[in-house]
Amino acid sequence: MSTICAISTPYGTGGIAVIRVSGEEAVTIADRLFEGRVSLMDAKGGSVHFGRIQRDNEVLDEVLCSVFLAPHSFTGENTVEIACHGSLYIQQTLLQWLVDEGCRMAKPGEFTQRAFLNGKMDLAQAESVADLIASQSKAEKDLALSQLRGSVSGELAHLRERLLHFTSLVELELDFADHEELEFADRNELTLLAVEIEQKLAALLASFRTGNAIRNGISVAIIGAPNVGKSTLLNALLGEQRAIVSDIQGTTRDTIEDTLVLDGILFRLIDTAGLRESSDTIENMGMERSRKAAEQAQIIIHVMDDVQCTKDDVRWISEGMKGTVIEVLNKIDLVEGFSLHGETNGNRLPISAKNGEIEPLKKELVRIARANMQPSAVMLSNARHYEAIQRAHEAIERVQQGLKDALSGELLSMDLQDCLNALGEVTGQITNQEVLSNIFSKFCIGK
Amino acid sequence: MSTICAISTPYGTGGIAVIRVSGEEAVTIADRLFEGRVSLMDAKGGSVHFGRIQRDNEVLDEVLCSVFLAPHSFTGENTVEIACHGSLYIQQTLLQWLVDEGCRMAKPGEFTQRAFLNGKMDLAQAESVADLIASQSKAEKDLALSQLRGSVSGELAHLRERLLHFTSLVELELDFADHEELEFADRNELTLLAVEIEQKLAALLASFRTGNAIRNGISVAIIGAPNVGKSTLLNALLGEQRAIVSDIQGTTRDTIEDTLVLDGILFRLIDTAGLRESSDTIENMGMERSRKAAEQAQIIIHVMDDVQCTKDDVRWISEGMKGTVIEVLNKIDLVEGFSLHGETNGNRLPISAKNGEIEPLKKELVRIARANMQPSAVMLSNARHYEAIQRAHEAIERVQQGLKDALSGELLSMDLQDCLNALGEVTGQITNQEVLSNIFSKFCIGK
Repeated sequence: MSTICAISTPYGTGGIAVIRVSGEEAVTIADRLFEGRVSLMDAKGGSVHFGRIQRDNEVLDEVLCSVFLAPHSFTGENTVEIACHGSLYIQQTLLQWLVDEGCRMAKPGEFTQRAFLNGKMDLAQAESVADLIASQSKAEKDLALSQLRGSVSGELAHLRERLLHFTSLVELELDFADHEELEFADRNELTLLAVEIEQKLAALLASFRTGNAIRNGISVAIIGAPNVGKSTLLNALLGEQRAIVSDIQGTTRDTIEDTLVLDGILFRLIDTAGLRESSDTIENMGMERSRKAAEQAQIIIHVMDDVQCTKDDVRWISEGMKGTVIEVLNKIDLVEGFSLHGETNGNRLPISAKNGEIEPLKKELVRIARANMQPSAVMLSNARHYEAIQRAHEAIERVQQGLKDALSGELLSMDLQDCLNALGEVTGQITNQEVLSNIFSKFCIGK
Repeated sequence: MSTICAISTPYGTGGIAVIRVSGEEAVTIADRLFEGRVSLMDAKGGSVHFGRIQRDNEVLDEVLCSVFLAPHSFTGENTVEIACHGSLYIQQTLLQWLVDEGCRMAKPGEFTQRAFLNGKMDLAQAESVADLIASQSKAEKDLALSQLRGSVSGELAHLRERLLHFTSLVELELDFADHEELEFADRNELTLLAVEIEQKLAALLASFRTGNAIRNGISVAIIGAPNVGKSTLLNALLGEQRAIVSDIQGTTRDTIEDTLVLDGILFRLIDTAGLRESSDTIENMGMERSRKAAEQAQIIIHVMDDVQCTKDDVRWISEGMKGTVIEVLNKIDLVEGFSLHGETNGNRLPISAKNGEIEPLKKELVRIARANMQPSAVMLSNARHYEAIQRAHEAIERVQQGLKDALSGELLSMDLQDCLNALGEVTGQITNQEVLSNIFSKFCIGK
């Protein structure tokens, strides 16, 4: 396999940058450009060496080279990580020199792909590397790291192995089709196993709701009549001027999205156009999008500014909205003598978005999120895994039904194979080049 | 000295990020958060270790820790470089944990400052680290790297040492002031040395023109009447749509600057407002700025579009413009049958900015730049060094005059001290906290 190279640190100028080289020739190629106290060819795995990168008497930079020898590296191949000064010119020239010496520029995710192909991690683990890098909150990081460390993979591999054992026995029966009485696979044990697998897969599928919320954030729509201060509330929650705020009704026309981390939980806030009767076409389109956003949201913040609770605001909440609604009474700063803690205001949470008095709302968001999230030791967060496990779950249900109906081994084994294949797709035991390319193309270059 | 930490790689999300920890407690502190096959406390200098960063049962990430032990590190102190996954959340949390364990966030340039304070490099070398990181062209990188490797420092340290020797002898004479006949310092030898130093300092000062051009780029002003295609030329040179181009006279009102590297040389291009009579106040202000920019430029590209050479365009070149003028005939694409190589057009370089036919101009820019640049083995590029060496040069001239005038040792030694101090300021043998703070505050954090 060719030796690949890429800049692994974020793009830009910085104190240092790291260029990673991996492949059989990694050490040989890097050594041709390296001049230090020792040759990299003699370097032990896990050692760092100071020296110069040079070629034809031109010195490019003074660097630190870390050498890792196969299989004891991230990719499982020989790897050299060159830490150079973080000038863009130096980074790019060093890459160019490595290519001149026989490296190829790495494709996105190619280092991780090689780690997978070399058996350093399975596919689900490899995918979690990208999630780990993209993680913005503690919960997200914890989830990705637990998957990188094999939580999902381990669970599935264990189930699959036991199922494989039974499947082999069932298939063995087919070889002795003449002897109908032969049953290598004990149907009672298989039934017990199928029940266990069905339950575990169902639990995994159920965990996706929480895992997905952690990975992609819990969607929160801010809705309400015009001018009740929805955009001001968004800005207050984000602590920045994200949305344009004015006294003019209909200032926010399109939905505005941004993310917020509270107490380690990622929220996706959606500020919507104010809901009202309007003849403005663009504004009406905006309101249509608002309704849709609200219908898909897991939490809906319904903002009102009617301290006397006289207006009928309930009509903004429509049938299609399934999320938990938080009713909020904004603009309490306008009411003289209003105390945050004194009044009851029905169930409405009193806040002042303008003055940043929104702590009760933040607490309520976290409380609802926690109540909706059921973190478990093993959680799904990847839609590809979810889809595959759904298929595995359907197949194991067919196996269960087949066992009840005393189906022939031949039919049974087809459903068993379907289940095995679907499970194997998650961990990459069953895969194809297209799926792999698709997965790793979403990675950043250099990882 | 406290143990400091910072993210050393560029800001952002990437495959990996490197967090540097330096100080007496670096290994102890990092080890408290590190869980690997071996304790970092037992790690040899120059070794890399795979493990987890964790605290209170929370695993933050899987990382590689490189350990360097004093004095064999960049800073000369114990240093641990932690390569973690390049998620912003992970980078920031790791920094926070290090601070919780007793590190202090590093100030800009503080690692390099410590390298200077610990005698790993002198001040001129330390300053070149920032230049190296900022370098955009080969010439710039070569210059910074040569200074990092001690070219300027070595030259000055050598001169200073010999001058110091004579100065001590002259000062020794003062202790024996009663014996006027005593002359420990041979005046003839001192005269020879002063001549040598004066010449070397003069050569260094002369090299600043070239060094500064390499470091900051050669300034190139594009001037000419309105609508001759100055902005189109700027865009063609840069290979991008940098300036707004239109057929309307006076489209470019302010000067637009951008840099361009040709053949390893950095150019600073300045597009100016078209020069013409105008009653528009803003446009007149723009033209005033154009003239100023042109007066300061080292190269002036005078653009004309008058293929018949009938217009009198020379009036745009004013007295104050000292740079080399390149006359360019643009819009040759509009002339049917015009051949790039056939016509003479006076000395005007025929180009078509619109069609990107600007190779002759690029070659001419490089030719003039090379003719103006006199690269030498040792070059000054730092304005602070230039200023100090100017003072050293003045002092050594006073020494020469004093020797001619057979000045007393007392007066002579004052000038000698002035020269020694000025030289010492460059390399940091003579310095103060304010100067140091000022120098390192311009660095990026993490270096």
